[in-house]
Amino acid sequence: MDFLSPDTVMDITNIRAALIRMEDTIVFNLIERAKFPRQPSSYENGGIRIPGFDGSFVDWILREEEIVHAKVRRYQSPDEVPFFPDDLPEPILPPISYPPVLFPHPNKVSVNDRIKAFYVNDIVPSVCADGEQKENLGSSSLCDVECLRSLSRRIHFGRFVAESKFRMEREEITALIKAKDRAGLEAAITNSAVEKQVLARLKKKAETYGIDPNLLSSPSNQKVDADAVVAIYENWVIPLTKEVEVEYLLHRLDREE
Amino acid sequence: MDFLSPDTVMDITNIRAALIRMEDTIVFNLIERAKFPRQPSSYENGGIRIPGFDGSFVDWILREEEIVHAKVRRYQSPDEVPFFPDDLPEPILPPISYPPVLFPHPNKVSVNDRIKAFYVNDIVPSVCADGEQKENLGSSSLCDVECLRSLSRRIHFGRFVAESKFRMEREEITALIKAKDRAGLEAAITNSAVEKQVLARLKKKAETYGIDPNLLSSPSNQKVDADAVVAIYENWVIPLTKEVEVEYLLHRLDREE
Repeated sequence: MDFLSPDTVMDITNIRAALIRMEDTIVFNLIERAKFPRQPSSYENGGIRIPGFDGSFVDWILREEEIVHAKVRRYQSPDEVPFFPDDLPEPILPPISYPPVLFPHPNKVSVNDRIKAFYVNDIVPSVCADGEQKENLGSSSLCDVECLRSLSRRIHFGRFVAESKFRMEREEITALIKAKDRAGLEAAITNSAVEKQVLARLKKKAETYGIDPNLLSSPSNQKVDADAVVAIYENWVIPLTKEVEVEYLLHRLDREE
Repeated sequence: MDFLSPDTVMDITNIRAALIRMEDTIVFNLIERAKFPRQPSSYENGGIRIPGFDGSFVDWILREEEIVHAKVRRYQSPDEVPFFPDDLPEPILPPISYPPVLFPHPNKVSVNDRIKAFYVNDIVPSVCADGEQKENLGSSSLCDVECLRSLSRRIHFGRFVAESKFRMEREEITALIKAKDRAGLEAAITNSAVEKQVLARLKKKAETYGIDPNLLSSPSNQKVDADAVVAIYENWVIPLTKEVEVEYLLHRLDREE
């Protein structure tokens, strides 16, 4: 697909295909997380005491991995938004010269703090059983990190969606931006029919990937609650993506001309 | 399941369930890797030049993440075997007191170098299209790291299988160990009927998880080649697991009375 080539990244067909493919990744990651119970102490600041760090265990792993990945340029890619942008080192590799595809470039819209909050407070309780397994705190936290990254990438992809819509309806959207008309922008980017399709598609994915196809289909064989996965998109992913789109568009003209 | 509690880890029913569940993880990881082309330069030593490091790009990420994870005790868990054991720091957290379940404790059997070799030389070419996408070298390498870890965990789980078999057939296996009878040990741990079941089950998983259930089932919609996934198990995972089992058993009595 070579989606993130600068020449194909703004094709709405590619953007849609990428968003659909990300659903699979998110469902896979939630299924992996659901192997473990909730593990509340891994989300509490100081719940597991780490010398020199006052955040949570999951925060620590997420931040340390971001530091590693930043060294090899992860956050220079326009589709990546770090959770700990202030703590990251400079890359140790020469920069990739990536033509600007988002404007202003680089684009700083980030809702990662809110993603982390709803993930911890809503998603984990909705897909995991109660309880804590001390022996598996590391494993569950690594699943958390993957879930958070895939949700963040999906939600911040709203910036590409918004840019592509802007290019398709430049006049109408420019007027809304200039009027700072948030409600108008949200209406312009909303397509309720597509949202319903997304939720129906997602339910089928969660049901299909969530069961070993060699077993009988039964609730006890289901590795993740499909309705919970749908609710995650309905209550969080879709609304936050729209917020990202609106926020992106409100600043779309900041440095043009 | 709380599988890795010392009191349940040696129950063969739990071991089987864990192995079956790991198939899902491996299939998910291969599907994710297959999004990207082969990316040959990410596997060559110096293919992407990293200051102060002469291994490959994938090696670098794997090693740096292992350093992070070692700090929070990942490799104190009896089911984890690092790829870079000589480069790891001491944990920054107090040790988990985990009663010995493998003998001698800790058990040092590792085939990670061979896992990496067959992964790079055989698996990647069998599931990925030809070519390289410079913009996605980081993303594909992170998928590699997940694939390698899940394959390593699966294959080294042979140690638990072997220990459990040892406990069930202590007399017969003790005699084979004392005679250093590799062929006899391999025969004692081999169950061809179960191996066939594994391959059939795996094929169905790769076919089911590898297609968006909202699309028509067709080769062009298949995210990963199901036959390639089966071949990975048949040619590499199953034989190497048996080697781990035999190697484990050969040293099983080293420090016992």
